[in-house]
Amino acid sequence: MLIPATRIAQVTIAAALLGNTPLLAADPLPSWKETPLKQSLIEFVTKVTKEDSPDYVPPAERIAAFDNDGTLCSEQPMYTQFIFGQDKVKEQAAAHPEWKEKQPFKAALEDDIASIGESEVKGLTAIVAGTHVGRTTEELQKSVNDWLATAQHPTLKRPYTELVYQPMLELLSYLRANEFKTYIVTGSAVEFLRAWAERVYGIPPERIIGSNVETAVVVKDGVARIEIADGVAFANNKSGKALLIDRVIGRKPILVFGNSDGDLDMMRLAAGAKNHWAGIVHHTDGEREFAYDSESLFGRLKAGLTDAEKNGWHVVDMKNDWLTVFPPAKQ
Amino acid sequence: MLIPATRIAQVTIAAALLGNTPLLAADPLPSWKETPLKQSLIEFVTKVTKEDSPDYVPPAERIAAFDNDGTLCSEQPMYTQFIFGQDKVKEQAAAHPEWKEKQPFKAALEDDIASIGESEVKGLTAIVAGTHVGRTTEELQKSVNDWLATAQHPTLKRPYTELVYQPMLELLSYLRANEFKTYIVTGSAVEFLRAWAERVYGIPPERIIGSNVETAVVVKDGVARIEIADGVAFANNKSGKALLIDRVIGRKPILVFGNSDGDLDMMRLAAGAKNHWAGIVHHTDGEREFAYDSESLFGRLKAGLTDAEKNGWHVVDMKNDWLTVFPPAKQ
Repeated sequence: MLIPATRIAQVTIAAALLGNTPLLAADPLPSWKETPLKQSLIEFVTKVTKEDSPDYVPPAERIAAFDNDGTLCSEQPMYTQFIFGQDKVKEQAAAHPEWKEKQPFKAALEDDIASIGESEVKGLTAIVAGTHVGRTTEELQKSVNDWLATAQHPTLKRPYTELVYQPMLELLSYLRANEFKTYIVTGSAVEFLRAWAERVYGIPPERIIGSNVETAVVVKDGVARIEIADGVAFANNKSGKALLIDRVIGRKPILVFGNSDGDLDMMRLAAGAKNHWAGIVHHTDGEREFAYDSESLFGRLKAGLTDAEKNGWHVVDMKNDWLTVFPPAKQ
Repeated sequence: MLIPATRIAQVTIAAALLGNTPLLAADPLPSWKETPLKQSLIEFVTKVTKEDSPDYVPPAERIAAFDNDGTLCSEQPMYTQFIFGQDKVKEQAAAHPEWKEKQPFKAALEDDIASIGESEVKGLTAIVAGTHVGRTTEELQKSVNDWLATAQHPTLKRPYTELVYQPMLELLSYLRANEFKTYIVTGSAVEFLRAWAERVYGIPPERIIGSNVETAVVVKDGVARIEIADGVAFANNKSGKALLIDRVIGRKPILVFGNSDGDLDMMRLAAGAKNHWAGIVHHTDGEREFAYDSESLFGRLKAGLTDAEKNGWHVVDMKNDWLTVFPPAKQ
């Protein structure tokens, strides 16, 4: 097997560091290469957490907001939530002949990825709702976990919960160790993330902000169930992400990470905080993951690249900033 | 000045306890009389926090949800948010001649309390939005605090932030000391509560769940402002409270406190948890506060009383369960 140049570079850096720095053992971000980007991240966290720093931010205000698909985990060839939803549509198709003519179900049945892309977050949420009508939001989470237990990524051949980015797992832990509150702000339905975000990312349900399937309260024997209805209560994308952070958290995030133009308003919201750091994951690594940006159907990144410099957005070059992409496979 | 019987009783109890129990010094709820209700509350908190108890609930799942008006603070002669909104409508009336014919503004201008009551949460939220169009959600909070700094309750003659219930302040602290996450779930706009809930109740902005004024993202010089628009994005009342707890928190509360029939679905939601405790504040104290229930325009409590026993809801009799109602006046 050939050893890629980046691998040689990382060994060289590690060897160099081993010789003379006791800091290596305490490196909170071991999967990040020693680049200016990593340095900038650590400098930011250090200055906002140091009590005698002019940039000090009290723990209550240390809000970090992360997009999910493409930022914390792989989103190609399409969002994981959609692959789940499409499987459910196909499973239930016989009982729903009307779906043959009804979007976005029709597109899911016909593998019409372009139409799915066009339906955006609202369409994807409608599929999750429509395939779980009458079930509770807890039952939806169980449905997601049952699916995740056996589903495999079509080309990477691993469970989706393992296709999360190791450098970002380290960043989430590092931030929490520094008393940041780590939030996910996603276009997926909150239940889709809540099903697995706590065990995979360490992020509890109340720190997942996302789209909402329509729900209704059904009372039986004095107990209220929250049942899913056939519709979308809130589609969370683009400017919706900034709106929803304001509604749900009520504070500006001071650290934001995204990967597509749909995440830029979150970064612009953070720009109103006294201190902030905003990062964009640029998918440049077609060998270890996928390489895409301005022409992609999912996770399109265009303005995020052209406007990065003038806005001070830090662009992570996956290929050159990350030593490792995914965590080791579980047994 | 006459000493009421309840006051004599409390002195007697205190004297009796002083003699032989070291527990008094550690009483976490000193403003609650030694009644079965207080005992039940403490027993519940003890059993869910004791690791070897069969009823143990891990800290992450210790969600406590409180209604605000009438549960944590006075709501008569009407909700504080409405008194604020009405003042703002009257202040701005000259610039808005259309309000003379437009509800709910017309009702606010004419002191038409019955129509205001009928407009429900949606009307009250519309007033807050309509009087702050174009301002940011942070500016709305400042507007609330500027008003609170001088506003006084019409009959109790104290600032509204002092008309909070001392026994509930103690309960909030007691729950947090036992690693509960204390949330407010209110019909008021989240910004109205966020303006003062942290300094008065110790509840941070992300633990306020409520109604939402309509907002829009406005980007200027790379910075996103969240500006208020003339409308209501979500009116949070009745079954909405249970829906929103599910959407925002994603876990069932295990302790719920309300005071009106609008809070019952929250209690029914808690009833689906393995362990839960649900309380209703019954306003029985016309001398120290207000006495009202099934016929009140604000905070109507009818089914909450008739169905309490069969549902196991604990009804707090303000007059007989609380030693003190309000905290001492600030200088």
